[in-house]
Amino acid sequence: MKALVLDGVGKIKVVDKEMPKVQHPADAVLKMVRTTICGSDLHIIKGDVPTVPNGRTMGHEGIGVVEDIGAEVKGVRKGEKVLIACITSCATCSFCRKSMNDQCKRGGWTLGNSNDGTQAEYVRIPFADSNLYPVPEGVDERSLLVYSDILPTGLEVATLRGGVKPGCSIAIVGAGPVGLASAITAQLYSPRTIVFLDKDESRLEVAKKIGATDCINPTKGDVRELASKHFGDIDGFDVVVEAVGVPATFKMCQDLVGVGGHIANVGVHGTKVELDIDRLWPRSITISMALVSAHTIPMLLELFAAGKLDTSSLITHDFKFAEIEKAYDVFGRAAETKALKVNIEF
Amino acid sequence: MKALVLDGVGKIKVVDKEMPKVQHPADAVLKMVRTTICGSDLHIIKGDVPTVPNGRTMGHEGIGVVEDIGAEVKGVRKGEKVLIACITSCATCSFCRKSMNDQCKRGGWTLGNSNDGTQAEYVRIPFADSNLYPVPEGVDERSLLVYSDILPTGLEVATLRGGVKPGCSIAIVGAGPVGLASAITAQLYSPRTIVFLDKDESRLEVAKKIGATDCINPTKGDVRELASKHFGDIDGFDVVVEAVGVPATFKMCQDLVGVGGHIANVGVHGTKVELDIDRLWPRSITISMALVSAHTIPMLLELFAAGKLDTSSLITHDFKFAEIEKAYDVFGRAAETKALKVNIEF
Repeated sequence: MKALVLDGVGKIKVVDKEMPKVQHPADAVLKMVRTTICGSDLHIIKGDVPTVPNGRTMGHEGIGVVEDIGAEVKGVRKGEKVLIACITSCATCSFCRKSMNDQCKRGGWTLGNSNDGTQAEYVRIPFADSNLYPVPEGVDERSLLVYSDILPTGLEVATLRGGVKPGCSIAIVGAGPVGLASAITAQLYSPRTIVFLDKDESRLEVAKKIGATDCINPTKGDVRELASKHFGDIDGFDVVVEAVGVPATFKMCQDLVGVGGHIANVGVHGTKVELDIDRLWPRSITISMALVSAHTIPMLLELFAAGKLDTSSLITHDFKFAEIEKAYDVFGRAAETKALKVNIEF
Repeated sequence: MKALVLDGVGKIKVVDKEMPKVQHPADAVLKMVRTTICGSDLHIIKGDVPTVPNGRTMGHEGIGVVEDIGAEVKGVRKGEKVLIACITSCATCSFCRKSMNDQCKRGGWTLGNSNDGTQAEYVRIPFADSNLYPVPEGVDERSLLVYSDILPTGLEVATLRGGVKPGCSIAIVGAGPVGLASAITAQLYSPRTIVFLDKDESRLEVAKKIGATDCINPTKGDVRELASKHFGDIDGFDVVVEAVGVPATFKMCQDLVGVGGHIANVGVHGTKVELDIDRLWPRSITISMALVSAHTIPMLLELFAAGKLDTSSLITHDFKFAEIEKAYDVFGRAAETKALKVNIEF
């Protein structure tokens, strides 16, 4: 079979690999139907994720058809089309039983990391019963791709940890896929305001389409001045989502958070940041940071199947799997290509 | 009357001042019975709190007898002995109605800051009905002094914001008055472990007396190694309390917090700190920071009156008000004098 693998820092290539097989009774093997590329795949290529060896098949998102199952698998059957959770959960360890699948003692973020991933014609999924979800009838399968990772990330890491609730004000720094997914899931809790900050005007256009109240380009002035009409008496926002992952955007979040407010960090950071605790401590601030656990996928799928979530704006480009290297190039040059998530079909 | 005032950076002095009077119908004037000194008073003397002018009467804690009341005061009567809340709450603004008295639009931390404080023979307390609490019958009035500030600080900023709950593990960095108050209030929620870290062995002795499971002197080795037997599978502590307020102790908290854990910052910081977000973000960490609101004083007084709180170890020295400059000296040299809170009687 064909697989897209890491080939040293800065490089990827398509290779021929042996087809994966059921190795444990809880495994399933899937024939892939669609996959996509994540910002963390770009981090892997840059060499930021040292657990990924050369030759590893990349990718942790996608939809496939069950090709084979181990003897213990009860939740999915051969021939069924399923969505893959980006995080692998054993469902029984102390972390999984607290819905912290990302810290699973036998799983966690393993796909396309310590195990071969979804950017291949076939993939082996451990603990199939707790990591595969039948594709609901009649949904748009192309936009379903975002339910593997970015939509649960937006819900769990931004909306739930950030404490979004009815009537609150939200600023989202970064209108990339995860920032947009944060806004879509935040709207489940009826905030009064969602303000996006991004220097990319085309991303701000998408933000408006998915429900932003206001969009601010931080290159056009002081962000506090530009956003101040939304501050209310807390002198800032109730919830600020950091959806970029660099020191400058983390600083911007500290400038925007209001008294009693919450900074929900979603961005993947490669360096330390400065925390202005000397000015923030008397303002009752909370800061949270986490990896997605993906335990909210079943609920999100039910909402999607019920027509209550429109995630179609998040997929911007389509490729065949034979074009996956081109897909990486387009995704990697998002500022020029206006790419958000890409749909790669097998 | 006599009052202890700020007299320029590094200096305090006792002066003669005019007695305060009822200025607004909600005011009370108290004749002071006892007061104490806070770490933040030392910050003021160092010049760290620019809102405090020279000549300001210091202090925000204490017990007094009601000398006079304004026409609107209904909750306390002349001659009644009352505890003073360190934070002044109007009880009606949008912050006070969310129990965020520290952000009160007409009050907040004003005593000994923007208004004359409690280290004087008389003090004026605005909004008397919401900031004075009758001293319960039969309690040890000397140790009641800690209910003005440090006990509600421990409860609200460490225990409640830190999310202390039954069975959790707690590390408290800093066994000063507020760290000890954090441990006393944390025990209301039945943690399984409270580990103190402090380089002052005499403070660690007090920590043992008030219920610490283990005490670690961080000068004796690597703190993670010294504390590792308490880590469990979260590879650290559930709740880490920062009760010092310098970059080195904030760093120590980041080293000690476990997966899914919470750093509750209580320390008053004068500089920025480094946040190791690059290694902490995948560990599901939450960090909170706040000033005390003091809205929990009534509940704490009920517990104290019921004999459920032993706070006697927190008061180490006794002075007459005439000796207040000596009291500051003893409190300021705590490492030598082993002072925690001091009882200053009028």
